[in-house]
Amino acid sequence: MLKKLKEEVYAANMELQRQGLVKYTWGNASGFDEDEQVFVIKPSGVPYEELTPDDLVTVNLDGEKVDGKLNPSSDTATHAVIYKHFKEIKGVVHTHSPWATIWAQSGQELRPMGTTHADHFYGAIPCARYLTKQEIDEGYEKETGNLIVDTFKEKNIDPVAVPGILLHGHASFTWGKNVTDAVVNNVVLDEIAKMNLFARIVNPNASDLPQEILDKHYLRKHGANAYYGQN
Amino acid sequence: MLKKLKEEVYAANMELQRQGLVKYTWGNASGFDEDEQVFVIKPSGVPYEELTPDDLVTVNLDGEKVDGKLNPSSDTATHAVIYKHFKEIKGVVHTHSPWATIWAQSGQELRPMGTTHADHFYGAIPCARYLTKQEIDEGYEKETGNLIVDTFKEKNIDPVAVPGILLHGHASFTWGKNVTDAVVNNVVLDEIAKMNLFARIVNPNASDLPQEILDKHYLRKHGANAYYGQN
Amino acid sequence: MLKKLKEEVYAANMELQRQGLVKYTWGNASGFDEDEQVFVIKPSGVPYEELTPDDLVTVNLDGEKVDGKLNPSSDTATHAVIYKHFKEIKGVVHTHSPWATIWAQSGQELRPMGTTHADHFYGAIPCARYLTKQEIDEGYEKETGNLIVDTFKEKNIDPVAVPGILLHGHASFTWGKNVTDAVVNNVVLDEIAKMNLFARIVNPNASDLPQEILDKHYLRKHGANAYYGQN
Amino acid sequence: MLKKLKEEVYAANMELQRQGLVKYTWGNASGFDEDEQVFVIKPSGVPYEELTPDDLVTVNLDGEKVDGKLNPSSDTATHAVIYKHFKEIKGVVHTHSPWATIWAQSGQELRPMGTTHADHFYGAIPCARYLTKQEIDEGYEKETGNLIVDTFKEKNIDPVAVPGILLHGHASFTWGKNVTDAVVNNVVLDEIAKMNLFARIVNPNASDLPQEILDKHYLRKHGANAYYGQN
Repeated sequence: MLKKLKEEVYAANMELQRQGLVKYTWGNASGFDEDEQVFVIKPSGVPYEELTPDDLVTVNLDGEKVDGKLNPSSDTATHAVIYKHFKEIKGVVHTHSPWATIWAQSGQELRPMGTTHADHFYGAIPCARYLTKQEIDEGYEKETGNLIVDTFKEKNIDPVAVPGILLHGHASFTWGKNVTDAVVNNVVLDEIAKMNLFARIVNPNASDLPQEILDKHYLRKHGANAYYGQN
Repeated sequence: MLKKLKEEVYAANMELQRQGLVKYTWGNASGFDEDEQVFVIKPSGVPYEELTPDDLVTVNLDGEKVDGKLNPSSDTATHAVIYKHFKEIKGVVHTHSPWATIWAQSGQELRPMGTTHADHFYGAIPCARYLTKQEIDEGYEKETGNLIVDTFKEKNIDPVAVPGILLHGHASFTWGKNVTDAVVNNVVLDEIAKMNLFARIVNPNASDLPQEILDKHYLRKHGANAYYGQN
Repeated sequence: MLKKLKEEVYAANMELQRQGLVKYTWGNASGFDEDEQVFVIKPSGVPYEELTPDDLVTVNLDGEKVDGKLNPSSDTATHAVIYKHFKEIKGVVHTHSPWATIWAQSGQELRPMGTTHADHFYGAIPCARYLTKQEIDEGYEKETGNLIVDTFKEKNIDPVAVPGILLHGHASFTWGKNVTDAVVNNVVLDEIAKMNLFARIVNPNASDLPQEILDKHYLRKHGANAYYGQN
Repeated sequence: MLKKLKEEVYAANMELQRQGLVKYTWGNASGFDEDEQVFVIKPSGVPYEELTPDDLVTVNLDGEKVDGKLNPSSDTATHAVIYKHFKEIKGVVHTHSPWATIWAQSGQELRPMGTTHADHFYGAIPCARYLTKQEIDEGYEKETGNLIVDTFKEKNIDPVAVPGILLHGHASFTWGKNVTDAVVNNVVLDEIAKMNLFARIVNPNASDLPQEILDKHYLRKHGANAYYGQN
């Protein structure tokens, strides 16, 4: 029944490797099924070379496995919380992609410095604080999800308009209207992280993109009157 | 009738991907037909993997589609303005290539620091200012073209000798005597941007290339007495 | 008799090249046989393209060749000392991988700044001092091994928990429970070195990972109650 | 008669591209024939994809073509001067490889900071000054050769022990006992340039390799009692 979703999630996981976002098993992608209220996710620690669509694991919104032979990704509880709270999100990706991870280790948010950013993220991409010892003890992966949701709430950011986050000392999560879209956002996030790092080397005082150009680029692709592409 | 040009423009668009200048659909190349006073350009948002020569769109100098099933690139109006004002230019390329885009985000021009630069660009490559809110409202893509033309006019730069520009907060446009040449210039611009960035890290006071070496390298390839190559 | 080990060591050496850790012959991997108390290592100066499992050389814990037609790696004596003193180690890898070598040239240890580090190394990765003239004269490669062992002893680091080291002005050695594991640790060490370098560019005051997150990530993969993967 | 040399020089030119040292036609390799006192070099401006061994051009020590249909590389006169003065050199390579070119643009020599350097270059790799206007007017390529020779003479460097140089604002030349060796030295020079750049970012005060380690590594590969490899 989830056959089509499994194929899409499988393709998305394989794309993580093809795009150079992951080494070994450092990443996972999942896709959500609206009708069943479950998501399909990569199993834990399985090399991409050996992965098949049948290996994918089906999990409910409480993070409990409902189908599959293997253990789901160790980050499953984080995915569950994201789907539970970000209602319009149907795909989630986590990777240790190099430049996003570098930026996450720095503990800083990614400012919108260019139109590459503006084409996909409508404003700064936040960097969540470290989890506390208490949160880690209560459930590291679930609390990571809660921290993501709380960070967007506190900063009053719409997760549809800014489909990703950095986690201090860890790496990135991105999401989207489906798992394919979530992968694209992970690729873009990594590229933005690289660009911003080096742009600040060229010019330590490099400015944010003016609001009107941010608006223009985001809205010509995503706004009500979008005119990018063939639609 | 434009069959040969379409094949050349198709090959140029595919080359953008092969050279690592573009991810997804972040780039477009066009070629101009002198007789018809039209140019052939990539359709908007079509992945390179799916692109065929028949998908290319034919556009006149006012930026109006005159042939083709698909919508032309969202940047079509910029190409049109460049062809209209830079009479000797027969190919235009726009990409978000990483190093040129990084430099564009910094808002600085690219100084001629080495002979790699001098072999292709006869002097500094300018960085145009941000567009104003008024310009964006009047027509973002067309005004981008006007800004490019005006920047060359104000700085009194010959677009044949300096076949490219950075746009602050955005990325690069390059051009040439045909679309193949415009792609080469985009590759070179990206490489120069990378080299200059790191050369300034090694030596923050690194100097411009002396004028006589800039002359020598540019003119041995492009001057009246050029002796590079087999001609 | 050592057929299976030789195949594993051969595959590990070839993987060094595939992972981009080595150019030419700048690396070597070895695997230890508990029963025979010998290790199998790459021959010296043989290009990876020409290497076969039969070319591998068998060496005892005093660094003496016991089987094989070719000369063993010039770094053989270093491998021997590591196996002799780090009793739980069954695989050793040496490469001049770019980012680890860069960091080795800087003479600084690698602080744990992210969970990528914590997933594989339980604390800072030390950088050993230069060898002295006397040590070099007494036996450069053997003394390199002794310096590695002494550095871990002096700093009171468990070589199982921190499976690698940088050598000032030289490059990295990594190890593991087998040669395949030692290669993984070499890949990870190089990636960490890259990440930490650039994270400090983004934020010169970037902090170490809090101890509780270091604990959490290392132990969820390697601790008594590890729950990562399929075991 | 020069068939074997031509094949070796052809292979060396193709290797430049495979190693990522050149884009387009930004490089050339030549090999010297002791008996004939001529060298075989890449033709000017011919893409590597189209190059065949028969396209190579034979040139004497005065830089005059003695055989071949095509124009020799525009840098031919520089190769000729190097062969004329560095008697033990039988192969020369010029590329605009990224990291060596970056360092050349900075105008600084490459200090020996690690054993990767010491394995191939016995001391600092010099950076020659810009050519003067008078030298350019007298013959840019020939005077480039003279400047290389003079720089080694003035600094009292043995070109066999330090088989390469950076040219301020330009790029690198390397050489060796044959053209294959000259390519290896070009690869190594580029890698050293990358490593030293980033090592100085990690630690602006990173030190030179102690003389005794430089001696050890260079001499274990190149000295009278060399013991690296299978000889």
